[in-house]
Parts: sequence; structure tokens; C-alpha cells
Amino acid sequence: MAGNSFGNIFKLTTFGESHGIAIGGVIDGCPSGLKVDFQAIQNELNRRKPGQSEIVTQRKEPDTVEFLSGIFEGVTTGTPIGFVIKNTNQKSKDYSHIKDVYRPSHADYTYEEKYGIRDYRGGGRSSARETACRVVAGALAKQIISDIKINAYTSSVGDIFLERPYQDLDFSKIESNIVRCPDAEVADEMINRIKDVRKAGDTIGGTVTCALQNVPVGLGEPVFDKLHAELGKAMLSINAVKGFEYGSGFCGAKMMGSEHNDLFNEDGSTKTNLSGGIQGGISNGMDIYFRVAFKPVATVIQKQNTLDKFGNIVEMQGKGRHDPCVVPRAIPIVEAMAALVLADFYLLNKIYN
Amino acid sequence: MAGNSFGNIFKLTTFGESHGIAIGGVIDGCPSGLKVDFQAIQNELNRRKPGQSEIVTQRKEPDTVEFLSGIFEGVTTGTPIGFVIKNTNQKSKDYSHIKDVYRPSHADYTYEEKYGIRDYRGGGRSSARETACRVVAGALAKQIISDIKINAYTSSVGDIFLERPYQDLDFSKIESNIVRCPDAEVADEMINRIKDVRKAGDTIGGTVTCALQNVPVGLGEPVFDKLHAELGKAMLSINAVKGFEYGSGFCGAKMMGSEHNDLFNEDGSTKTNLSGGIQGGISNGMDIYFRVAFKPVATVIQKQNTLDKFGNIVEMQGKGRHDPCVVPRAIPIVEAMAALVLADFYLLNKIYN
Amino acid sequence: MAGNSFGNIFKLTTFGESHGIAIGGVIDGCPSGLKVDFQAIQNELNRRKPGQSEIVTQRKEPDTVEFLSGIFEGVTTGTPIGFVIKNTNQKSKDYSHIKDVYRPSHADYTYEEKYGIRDYRGGGRSSARETACRVVAGALAKQIISDIKINAYTSSVGDIFLERPYQDLDFSKIESNIVRCPDAEVADEMINRIKDVRKAGDTIGGTVTCALQNVPVGLGEPVFDKLHAELGKAMLSINAVKGFEYGSGFCGAKMMGSEHNDLFNEDGSTKTNLSGGIQGGISNGMDIYFRVAFKPVATVIQKQNTLDKFGNIVEMQGKGRHDPCVVPRAIPIVEAMAALVLADFYLLNKIYN
Amino acid sequence: MAGNSFGNIFKLTTFGESHGIAIGGVIDGCPSGLKVDFQAIQNELNRRKPGQSEIVTQRKEPDTVEFLSGIFEGVTTGTPIGFVIKNTNQKSKDYSHIKDVYRPSHADYTYEEKYGIRDYRGGGRSSARETACRVVAGALAKQIISDIKINAYTSSVGDIFLERPYQDLDFSKIESNIVRCPDAEVADEMINRIKDVRKAGDTIGGTVTCALQNVPVGLGEPVFDKLHAELGKAMLSINAVKGFEYGSGFCGAKMMGSEHNDLFNEDGSTKTNLSGGIQGGISNGMDIYFRVAFKPVATVIQKQNTLDKFGNIVEMQGKGRHDPCVVPRAIPIVEAMAALVLADFYLLNKIYN
Repeated sequence: MAGNSFGNIFKLTTFGESHGIAIGGVIDGCPSGLKVDFQAIQNELNRRKPGQSEIVTQRKEPDTVEFLSGIFEGVTTGTPIGFVIKNTNQKSKDYSHIKDVYRPSHADYTYEEKYGIRDYRGGGRSSARETACRVVAGALAKQIISDIKINAYTSSVGDIFLERPYQDLDFSKIESNIVRCPDAEVADEMINRIKDVRKAGDTIGGTVTCALQNVPVGLGEPVFDKLHAELGKAMLSINAVKGFEYGSGFCGAKMMGSEHNDLFNEDGSTKTNLSGGIQGGISNGMDIYFRVAFKPVATVIQKQNTLDKFGNIVEMQGKGRHDPCVVPRAIPIVEAMAALVLADFYLLNKIYN
Repeated sequence: MAGNSFGNIFKLTTFGESHGIAIGGVIDGCPSGLKVDFQAIQNELNRRKPGQSEIVTQRKEPDTVEFLSGIFEGVTTGTPIGFVIKNTNQKSKDYSHIKDVYRPSHADYTYEEKYGIRDYRGGGRSSARETACRVVAGALAKQIISDIKINAYTSSVGDIFLERPYQDLDFSKIESNIVRCPDAEVADEMINRIKDVRKAGDTIGGTVTCALQNVPVGLGEPVFDKLHAELGKAMLSINAVKGFEYGSGFCGAKMMGSEHNDLFNEDGSTKTNLSGGIQGGISNGMDIYFRVAFKPVATVIQKQNTLDKFGNIVEMQGKGRHDPCVVPRAIPIVEAMAALVLADFYLLNKIYN
Repeated sequence: MAGNSFGNIFKLTTFGESHGIAIGGVIDGCPSGLKVDFQAIQNELNRRKPGQSEIVTQRKEPDTVEFLSGIFEGVTTGTPIGFVIKNTNQKSKDYSHIKDVYRPSHADYTYEEKYGIRDYRGGGRSSARETACRVVAGALAKQIISDIKINAYTSSVGDIFLERPYQDLDFSKIESNIVRCPDAEVADEMINRIKDVRKAGDTIGGTVTCALQNVPVGLGEPVFDKLHAELGKAMLSINAVKGFEYGSGFCGAKMMGSEHNDLFNEDGSTKTNLSGGIQGGISNGMDIYFRVAFKPVATVIQKQNTLDKFGNIVEMQGKGRHDPCVVPRAIPIVEAMAALVLADFYLLNKIYN
Repeated sequence: MAGNSFGNIFKLTTFGESHGIAIGGVIDGCPSGLKVDFQAIQNELNRRKPGQSEIVTQRKEPDTVEFLSGIFEGVTTGTPIGFVIKNTNQKSKDYSHIKDVYRPSHADYTYEEKYGIRDYRGGGRSSARETACRVVAGALAKQIISDIKINAYTSSVGDIFLERPYQDLDFSKIESNIVRCPDAEVADEMINRIKDVRKAGDTIGGTVTCALQNVPVGLGEPVFDKLHAELGKAMLSINAVKGFEYGSGFCGAKMMGSEHNDLFNEDGSTKTNLSGGIQGGISNGMDIYFRVAFKPVATVIQKQNTLDKFGNIVEMQGKGRHDPCVVPRAIPIVEAMAALVLADFYLLNKIYN
């Protein structure tokens, strides 16, 4: 109810604040008998971690996950998997300047209003640091649905767009540059833009596109828990996300039915795929693809007026080591959340087969 | 788990197929002591019902809701509210031509693959007829959160856009035309476009914009159940929806942090509202606004090739009485789903106050 | 949350008051492809219905269930199964004498205090009439787990006990007498006792024993959702139940470990079965058996002092047509709740196999 | 779904095996602003911990809880409270003798059958060590409902019964002896019996009685989630529990309605309390009391035949440091589970007030 769990069958519950002792989580419902690839999990964490390149925050945190339960001699036992990631880089003093201040477009004000108290250090619970736990669980989920290919990449930074559709891209190139755009030329533009933005003490938004391939037919529950509705919720629950569209998306709203309909082949596949691999909330075996919009990071290294908890407008100077653009580090998070949704529906669907 | 329930505290479970005996639902968790405005509920159903104007399907169904429980002498008792809407216009023979055929971009194929059986009459459970139950529950939810103003309207049909922002519109004009666009001139254009589309036996997509005003601060649960994540899921669960964005949305992804940040006033309100009334997943008291993309209806009154269940490509001719554009009838559905989300979070929030 | 749903995968939600228009429910998560045996469902309702014999309430209600959805041409479709049972015998005027009075040991007082309002007619929502909906869902659940044999019977009425253990009984005799005790001699004693009690305008308690045979190994989720914990909750949720024990039960608490342990046979079965077929919350393939205690019905046809809503002690004379002993009619309810628990765990377990 | 969570609003999820790195949990939904009494939590853990007296297991484990999140400067923040208890006394080698053997009346066989794998060390997840996490959460729950008095005590060991009703006891004496029976004389008998049992290498069962006093009227949700149904489930989920009864319990099943009914006083209280403080599943303000049956511990220090995983009957000699009787250490666990149920319903009830 309090919103810290995700999934029904494969269920993740997370806890932890940015500058507390540790963040962590519990994965309940992981099937037994899975030989865990720990390195694959750590690799995903490394894709998300701070300090990995010159265009992300320069905080240094190893983000090493420690599993406490549910895995015996390297194999899952069917019991809950508890894990922690210690917070090793807690420069709490960094944040004394925001103790009594609500940073614009952050969650400081709403947390304080809702709870009457907040752990102001680094944003506390509202920090995107929480997403490291999602990456851990998502990396495990990927191992359950290992036949499904999940690939996310940066499709825009500001007004620099990768115009080519996902089908034309070589996903093996995603990790070949620090902005995680599979087109080298566009990637360079994006990287330069982010560097410029950083130099200006500013931040910039962007979009992530994600393709889910080789998804079995039949995933998703119709009516309220449609596959794309859960994917949408999953993505919108990521910090800084402002929009989600799948298949034809907002463009589809401009189209006519006669051009939008996906005609069938004899094997049940479709000639086009404006539906985005989902019909009536259920996967149809075609590629699922969607796009996620991220706003620019709210922390800018510029003077801004803001409100303190005593009702005064005060001037504050952003500092700390923040991301000029979240999108490169959001790639593994988008993939993790997609994996959580798919693994959950995949397991649920086994009931009926 | 099977996806026919929505909400946690104020929880709607729906049932029913398009051409079965009845559709209906159970609302569990409605507080006791609410004097029910039955007329208001029926009015919302009337806004959704078929046959209401010349630009929607010409099926005639009264869509009269009958409450079976949970209301005693006009007042809610705190026990579950069961209700049914009889299916009076079940021309099942209309559908014999699709018995063995999967209509393109419908849910026929995915239901058959998932369940091994489907009620093919009128789309069965996948029919948007189910949304009438959402409108009933949403109309009741509105009565619980009666201080909140919920207004949705048609903001585009095909490439005809209402360009003015919601703040510049007079919401009292929404019901003054059959397309439910509060700008009379744009409405006329939209209506004419829909009439042309219908004449061509085709269909067209569109978007709905919705504004939630006077929302108390503090609604929404951070991390996975952010207020906008639940709104997004709610909207994406509506038939034909392909996208959701709130606040600055996809445009926000092109912006810089220095221009996107909403600076505070002394009373905690903000000078701008690119955040869309939500920060960190929690309402901040500013207007919440979002936009929903609807694809064109898949049933076109044209010949199309399609697949039958025996693996043959066959020609089919769409018939029946379908909507050339769902958007006008989707307005009350969008509002209902928004009301369900808000009422649920509103009640949940009472625990902590 | 408001307590009107039961189960996770195979989920029943019920609604309805004793003297409203109808009671009913929604079964969500029933697998598709099940050919429904409607007669079997009605038979179970008939075992529960009023007026079936001279030792139960003489109210006459046909208790005919009408299915509204989820079943197409006699086969389940995987979509929610809505159903209603009309209240045909609503003598509401019978209850005007309790409008302002809280009957002793009924739920009148607690409902009024909790909700500030109650439908006083026949106990409203607190009436055991609600259990008819459980019987419908349970009868369907039995069809999903048709290999499991579920047999409940009356094991005591007042101080008349059927002393023989369930293994020594012939379950085919349960329906051979109106008190549903498989030992003809003891049954006669019980029937006579109930007749005497009725004559005296009084009521009497009793116990039900239930055996679940041929349960597959592996049902139940350890820790909080142990198989016996869910069975216990299921039974305790039935009106008038005061206690639950399984296997050795309260007697086991007097024993030594050396005598209580169930030693294994080579095939994994056990030589004794004090465990009651469950170890660590998971079924082990042996018979599950448990006992449920029912208090005497609170409505006695005698003068009693009671409290009215204005704070006065007033004399009331019980009237109406009530059961002198609930146990005979509780048999199908106990079986239904057991079936719901088993079907739910059975389906859940398919995920992991 | 996988059974490692308890509660809806105040929700505990636990993880951890007896001999893994740590056990722990997440408490989600704890209201913000609660000044945590850490010493009170540790005190409850100390009441449960091994080695506390000569009649319990002589294992030594400090059972120190470490909170990782959700508490800032000693006050709850409304965010999830993660905690761990390290396993410091992991003598895993102790358990090599049971690696391939299913101990009688333990969960070894059922875990292996359900999951295909088990952490055999000390019972792994099925160990009662898990209940330490419940005690932590229960101790916190007690602080939320601090007006309610929760007292459990040992009411029988084997056939030694404390015959006096709870009303005649001085609860302040519960902690005055190591068996936690508030009657000194009976306590001595119990202690001696346990010592004898231990000397014989055997174990013995017992019962716990618990009284909940000063419970507000209105807690519990009618129909499936009745207050006593949740209490029953909570108790039955504790290791080794075989039965639960409340109020008149199994004795009530022998009574007549005319003697069982609780007549009202003018203030809504009742002259007797055979109902056990709950009517229709909702608390009525009178004392709630219930009794829980614990079987004898399955590990006896005697030679027993048992089954190995290869299908052979083999002789095994129980060893290790086990409890001759669980009841003394179960007292804080029963209280903790009662506190979890009450806190959850207490918070839920705030919605409707």
C-alpha cells in the first residue's frame, strides 16, 4: 500500500535512503533452482553506477550488492532473496545547506508536507539511488526470462534525436559509447551536448527507447493489468519520467484506422506492427517497443531562488556532484523495470498453461 | 491477479462481456455515510453511452445501472456495492461472421492464444463496453472527492489540435458540443473530420487532455506507486490508449533544467507548473494535467484481409455499428479512471493524517 | 482491504445483504477451458439452503444462482465470472422490531459503531446468507481440483460427540441423514437434541470435522501463508466459528515429541499422521484433517434484555425463522472454503512446476 | 503471493535462513513521526532469544537488530524500515548429518518436494529463527497502538494447566519466571516438567493464552477479513502451532444460545464476554482473548528412523541445541503477531473515521 513493492508473483520490495546505512530489497517469488549469474547482476549495477564516465555524476560509489538469503550454493531456493547495497559515500555534510530548504522541482516539499519529516540528505528516499535495487532485481528477472531480448538505448538528448527506428539499429553498439546510443554519429552529438550543458552548470532531458523481442504470446492480463499498462506504470515510477508511449504512441493518435491496422500473416505474425506487440493488453509475439521521456535533472549548479521551511524565499546555489543528463544511466533502469514486468507476467501465465 | 480489479482502498472489480447477460462490478471499500447522487452516476453513463450523437456508434443501449447492495435508503453502508448493467442490445447474430476470424488490431487473436477460447460476440471481454462499469465506479468516486475538479476534453482528432493550453479554456463549454472540445471553432473542425472519416468507412485517432484541480497536497505513494504512475496505468488500461504524458511530458525531455524548474512562491505554490502538480510522485497542490493518446478504432467498414483460426488469410468486410472516433465517448472514461486513482489515494492518505 | 475478497489466484469477491435485491460475487482467475457442471453447483447450494429439513430454519428460499459472465457455451473463458442469487424471500417487515435494537451476540452493535449505519434487515451484510456466494465459488473450485476429495461432516452437537476418527467413517453416509453425521446412531441423537433445543426456543453449538484427501504434495506457501494458516483463516471467517485445529490440534499440545513425530515410510508417506498432512505449512501428501467449532446461534426465541441505540435496556422477543443449530447447513460452507484455499494454492503452485 | 509478507497497511516482509548471513525484513507503511523506542524492541528480542534460561535451547545468539532505513534521527519518516539481524552462531557443520535426511515431522521433506532444493542447515527458511523478524516488527507495531495492552502467557505445558481464567491473573508476574506463567506455583510445575523432558532427550507441547485489552471498537473487516480470522491466521503461521480458539472457543460449541449470549450494559459493554471481544468480525471494545496450541518440538535427542533423499530408511540421532518446549520463547512471538494484526486494522480503520 505504501508503494515500496512492485510485482505480484515476482515481487520486489525496496528500502533505503540515499545517505542512510544501506539500500536494499527483498525479492519474493523467485522460482527455485535458478543458478544465479552474479556477475551479470553486478554488470547491470555497473551500467547504472555513478562515476562511470565523464558525462555522469562524478560521485564514486562501488554499488556492490550483497545477497543475504534465498540463494544456497549459488542456486535460488524459492525463499525470499534479501540483499543490501551499502552506502559508502555518504558525504552528509554536503547536504546541510538544504536541510531547511525545498529545492525547486525536487520532492523535498511534497515529502515534508506528506510525512511532516524528511531525511534531507541527498534527497533521502526520493533519491534515484533507490533504483539500484531495481537493477539488482531486474538483472535477476532477466535470468528467468532469458529467451526474451531486452534492449534500451538513448533515443534523444534535448533536441538531438536518433531518427532511425529501432529495427535499423545494431543493439550490440549500445554499450560502445558513454551515452548509450547505438548510432556512433548521433552519440557524439549527444555527448557533446551533455558536456556543454554540464559546463553551463545546467542539465538536459532526453528519451529512452526500449525494444522487447522474442516475447511469448499471451503475456499480460486484460482489462486493468494490460501488459502495456504495467509497462507504463513501471516506467513512470522511475525518477524524472514524464511520459510513456508504446507502438504507434502519440503518432498513432493522428492516424486513420485503415492505415493503423496491422494485417496478419498466416502464422499469426503481422505485416506491420503499429500495435507494438500488444493487442487487448496481451502480447501477440511481435516486438514490443516503447519510448520513455525523462525531464532534465532538477539540480542545476546555478543560483536559484527557493523556499525554506519557514516560508521565506531564499537564494540557493546548487552544488554536489549531479548528473547533467540522467538518460545514459537510466538505460539499465528502464531495462530492469521491463524485465520485472515481463518476468511477473511470464510466471503468472504459467498458471494457465 | 487476473487483472479485473483496480485500486487498493476504493477497489473496483468488474465483470462481463459485451454480449453476455450483463456487465457489472463490485466496489469494495467505499466509506459509509455517503448520500449517493444516483442521477450524477447515470449522467456520467449517458456521456459514455452509444447512440448519443451522430458522430458515435449508432447502437442503442440505455446503459441503466442497477445497484444490488451496499446502499441502504440512499446512503452507503460501508459494505460492498454490487451493480449490474444489463446488455439489452445483444444482436449476437451480427457477429457470426467473425466467429472463426481474428480481426486485425483487435484482441481476437491474443485472447484465443492466451485462453484457448473466446466469446467472439462483439469482442466479448475485450470490448470497450466494460468501461461502462468504470464510469459507474468513477462517478461514485467523484462524490467522495467532491472538492477536486476533474475535467477532460478532446484536445485533438487526427491532426486537428486544440492548441490552447488548458488554463485558457472554459471547461463549462466541454459539454456544449458533441465532440467535447471546449473551443467551438476547433470542435466544428473535429466534428466535420469525424463525419468525413465515417463516410469513408474509416476511423481516426485523437487525444484527450485532463486537468485535476484543487487536489490536496500529499496524494500518491513514492517509489513504485507514484501518483502519476498510477494515473498512467489507469489511462493505459483504457481500450485503444497508446500513450500518456503529464506536466511537461515528452516536450519536457527537450528542455534544460534551468528552464524546466518550477520556482516556489512563499505559500508553497509554484510560479510555473511544468511538474504537472506532482513532485516525487506526490501531489504538490498545483493543477495536475495530463494527455492521453487514443489510436483509431480497429473496426473499419472496408474490406480487409485477415486470418482465420484455421491459418487461412481470408477477406472480411467490417460491419456493425462502430465509433468512427472513440475520443468523444472516452472523455467520461478518462475522468472516471482519474477519479478512481484520486479517491483511492485520498482514502489511503487518511491513514497518515 | 475492506475484506470482501478471498484468494489470490482464484479470487472470490462477494457482495450483498440478506434482504437487499440480491447477493452475488465475482470469481476472478478461474482458468479457461473448464466445462462447468452447473448441477453440481446448484446441488451444493441446495445443501446449504434454508428449509431443507425440519432441523433448520423454515425460511423458503430457492437460492438459484444465475451466472452473468465468464462462461461461454458452458465453458469458462478465463474472464471474471459474475453471478447473482436473488433475494426472493425478503420479509423486511419482520425486522422492524430490531431497527433500533442491538441483538445480543449479533453484529448489530459493532456494525453500527464501525459504520455509523447498518442495514438492520435480517442482519444485512453480517447475515450468514452471504455464505451462499462462497458455496457457489467453492463448488466451482472443487471442479478445478477434482482429484482432491473434500468431505466435511457434523462431529458434535452440544455434548453429543461422534468419537470415531474420520478414518473409520463411511463418508458416503454423510448425506444420508439431515444432520450430516455419517454415523446413523449418533446422528439420531444429534437430531433429537436439536429438535429439543428448537422446542425450547433455544439454540445449540457444534463442531464440524473435515478431511481433505489426495492432496498433492507441495501446496501452501511457507512462513505467513502456510496451508493450515489459510485454512484456519478461511474457517474462522465463517459466521459463528470460534475455533480451528488441525492434525493433533489442541491434543497435540499435551504430547511429547517422541510420541508426536510421524515416522516416514520409504515412499515419503508417514506411518502416523499427527501432523495432519502439513509440515512447515506445505502439504506432504497425507490426509489433511481439521476441526471447526461453531457457537450456538445468537437468535433465541425467548425474551432477552438488550440495548437500543438510544442507550436504553429494553426487552426483546426473538422471532423469525432461525436455525436451532447451524452445523448441518455449515457442512457445505466448510467444504467450499476448503476448496477455495486448495484451488488457490493449487493454481499458485503451477507457477513453480 | 510467495507468503513472506504479512499485513496490508502496516506490512512486514521477512527474509533469511537460519544459517545464512542474516535474517531481516522490511516494514512498509509505518506512519511517520513515531519516536522509536529501540530498547523496547531489543527487549522483545531478548524475550525470544536462545540461551536466555536453562529450559530453552542453549545456543547463544545475541539477536541484535540493526535498522538500515526509514528512521531518521530516531523518528520514523514514513519510508520503509529495512532491518537485519546477523546470524553470528552459524555452526553449519552441525547440520551435515541431516544434509541428505528428512527429519520426521520437520519441513525437510516438503521443502525438498516443493522446491527441489533446500538449505538444510538448521532448517533453513523453515527454522523458527525467522520469527525474530516478526518480533522486531511486532515491537514496533506495539508502539503504534500503545494504548492497547497485549499480554500472552504460558497456560499449559503438557497436561499441566493453569486453570484460572486470564481475568484472575496478575500479568505483571509473567516475566517473573522463566516459563512465563503468571502463577508461581503452576510455573514451578511447568519448569520441572520441562527439565524432566529435556533430561529424557524429549520435548513437550503446550498452549499460550493471550489477552488484548483496551482495544477500540470497530477494528476488523467483516466477511473474510474478520478480526479473529486474521488473528487466527497470524497465530497459525507461527511454527509448531496446531490450533486456535477465541472467546468461548471449542467449549462454546457445547453450549446453548441462551447461556452463550452476552447481554449488554447501557454503555455498550457486555455483562459476560463469551464472544471474546469480537462480534461479526469487529472488535466491540471488550477484552479479546484467545488460546494457541503448540505441538512438541520435532527434534528429539533420541535415535529415530527416518528417510533419506535416496528413499532409504536410516537411523538418525538428533543432536544440536534445541528447545525442549517452545512455549516460553513463543510468548513474545504470539504478542508480536497480535500486535501486527491490531496495528494493521487500527491504521486501516483510520480511513473511515
